[in-house]
Amino acid sequence: VGEFDLIARFFERPAPAASAAQVARGVGDDCALLQPTPGMQWAVSTDMLVEGRHFLSTVAPERLGHKALAVNLSDLAACGARPVAYTLALSLPSVQEAWLAGFAQGLHALADAHGIALVGGDTTAGPLVIGITVMGEVPPGQALLRSGARAGDDLWVSGHLGDARLALEAFRGTVSPPQRVMELARRRMEQPVARVALGLALRGVASAAADVSDGLCGDLGHILAASQVGAVIEADDAMQLIASKALWMGVEGTFDDGPTPDDAQWVQWVLHGGDDYELVFTAAPAWRSRVGEAAALSGTPVRRIGQIQAEPGLWLRDTNGVLTRLPTRGFDHFA
Amino acid sequence: VGEFDLIARFFERPAPAASAAQVARGVGDDCALLQPTPGMQWAVSTDMLVEGRHFLSTVAPERLGHKALAVNLSDLAACGARPVAYTLALSLPSVQEAWLAGFAQGLHALADAHGIALVGGDTTAGPLVIGITVMGEVPPGQALLRSGARAGDDLWVSGHLGDARLALEAFRGTVSPPQRVMELARRRMEQPVARVALGLALRGVASAAADVSDGLCGDLGHILAASQVGAVIEADDAMQLIASKALWMGVEGTFDDGPTPDDAQWVQWVLHGGDDYELVFTAAPAWRSRVGEAAALSGTPVRRIGQIQAEPGLWLRDTNGVLTRLPTRGFDHFA
Repeated sequence: VGEFDLIARFFERPAPAASAAQVARGVGDDCALLQPTPGMQWAVSTDMLVEGRHFLSTVAPERLGHKALAVNLSDLAACGARPVAYTLALSLPSVQEAWLAGFAQGLHALADAHGIALVGGDTTAGPLVIGITVMGEVPPGQALLRSGARAGDDLWVSGHLGDARLALEAFRGTVSPPQRVMELARRRMEQPVARVALGLALRGVASAAADVSDGLCGDLGHILAASQVGAVIEADDAMQLIASKALWMGVEGTFDDGPTPDDAQWVQWVLHGGDDYELVFTAAPAWRSRVGEAAALSGTPVRRIGQIQAEPGLWLRDTNGVLTRLPTRGFDHFA
Repeated sequence: VGEFDLIARFFERPAPAASAAQVARGVGDDCALLQPTPGMQWAVSTDMLVEGRHFLSTVAPERLGHKALAVNLSDLAACGARPVAYTLALSLPSVQEAWLAGFAQGLHALADAHGIALVGGDTTAGPLVIGITVMGEVPPGQALLRSGARAGDDLWVSGHLGDARLALEAFRGTVSPPQRVMELARRRMEQPVARVALGLALRGVASAAADVSDGLCGDLGHILAASQVGAVIEADDAMQLIASKALWMGVEGTFDDGPTPDDAQWVQWVLHGGDDYELVFTAAPAWRSRVGEAAALSGTPVRRIGQIQAEPGLWLRDTNGVLTRLPTRGFDHFA
């Protein structure tokens, strides 16, 4: 199987019905040709995943295919854009058909779930690296930006944070969660859910949004910097965000399980864990019911964890009202 | 210098005037926001360059920045699309400021020359890999495709072919060209010119087009397959395409120079060399003068090297009229 057969065999397929009308020409020419919906803005984001950095070599290829697209869709979600199409550039050490079939299956399944088309690709021999660029649409002026947060806005987070980090720590051997907890955490790490439906529902509701990929504090930090505001996170509310904690507390331990992490550890994973692909967003307190509607409409849990304030800086408030300054830099590949 | 500083310091800059009106939001949010020109189709292509595969570790970073964008613009050129914007994903073993400054300089200079904006990016630690996605516009129905070649059409090639391969062979030590020849060949390999202006001028003139990245026969093979036709290439005309040959023949040799390649060698480099980033295209014989106008308008040399025929297959015809069958598979990373 050579490069060209490889593209044809594993990646060429008809566009899903939802995007077919916009794909004038997909894979198979020098460029794809897409027809933008009249009047819409085009939202674009790109992410590169490198083996050993963004995923472990042991990950199932189906899950990797899913994750590679999900982390890109998460950026469209954070802008409130409707996904339309994506391109895939793939560097592979060798052609392993079973691996490629699995990778394509995970990729296509998520693409189908969002009705988006793979419209272009490039494959090469090299280290295992996956580059995806996603394109979507949003009405002009309705994109969710990082710069719209205002003092007094509520601070919200979708879904769960910190579980992917727990899985990573377990792989590193620093914690030994019970099997059921590990399964949950590992699924969160390997199969993140891009919050596209929530992002769409938050158009006109959220004042600012970002996706949580480098840790809550880091990505919230982008919102605070772009909006020139600060924020306070309530520790009690933040602690509810990690799904593994409640599960671990409810699971009968075995003698192989390590000690339960303490609260200081759980909250660190929530605040700085990374690899979460949830949305952090802000909205005026008057729109709490609209946020609730958006959550219900999109079938996405959301939690209010704090408030935006005029004074710069990010703070964690414990149950005694004591404030601790939090760093606002996320995971940095070169730090 | 960390990841976020790195993006801000080396890659964030205002959009060039030519594309500024279309860039509602560039680098710095979860997505870029672009405003398509009403009624236009959006052309998209992606390419990944891996160190040791697509470039040598010794290449000057300015030239690498240029080349990484040029090979992508070449795909837009082959479709007759006007470039608008691009995204950059960069995996780097370490942050070397001088290297990054040089890379950015080469990248930005070519982007400025084409008036296109860098609208999104991702940087990560890892092997040296460059992923670029380019986006451009073309009026619906006017894109140059691979599928439009008809029996009787002339076969054309822009610029020069084979010189990049000569440089590669010299680096491999299989040939020893005189210094001036090597300089020319190396510039062709490291600083290809994307034929964007020619592609635009060929709208409505060329019946089919592709860019020559994997070798003339391989990329022409894509046109033949998509158009369900064959072609004959005249060996004498093809031989004129390699610029290094005439130069080498005119240069006084030194005792360090190896023997001059023979004609069989030159023609192999023209036909199968790769890394050329020229356009191969077809047009009705009645439009020879329009092809000439397009070439003049875009300041691009073009040469007619053969003809499309109804019978499938690709053939080389020598001066005695003898036909030799040519393979139509280009460079395959996994073959």
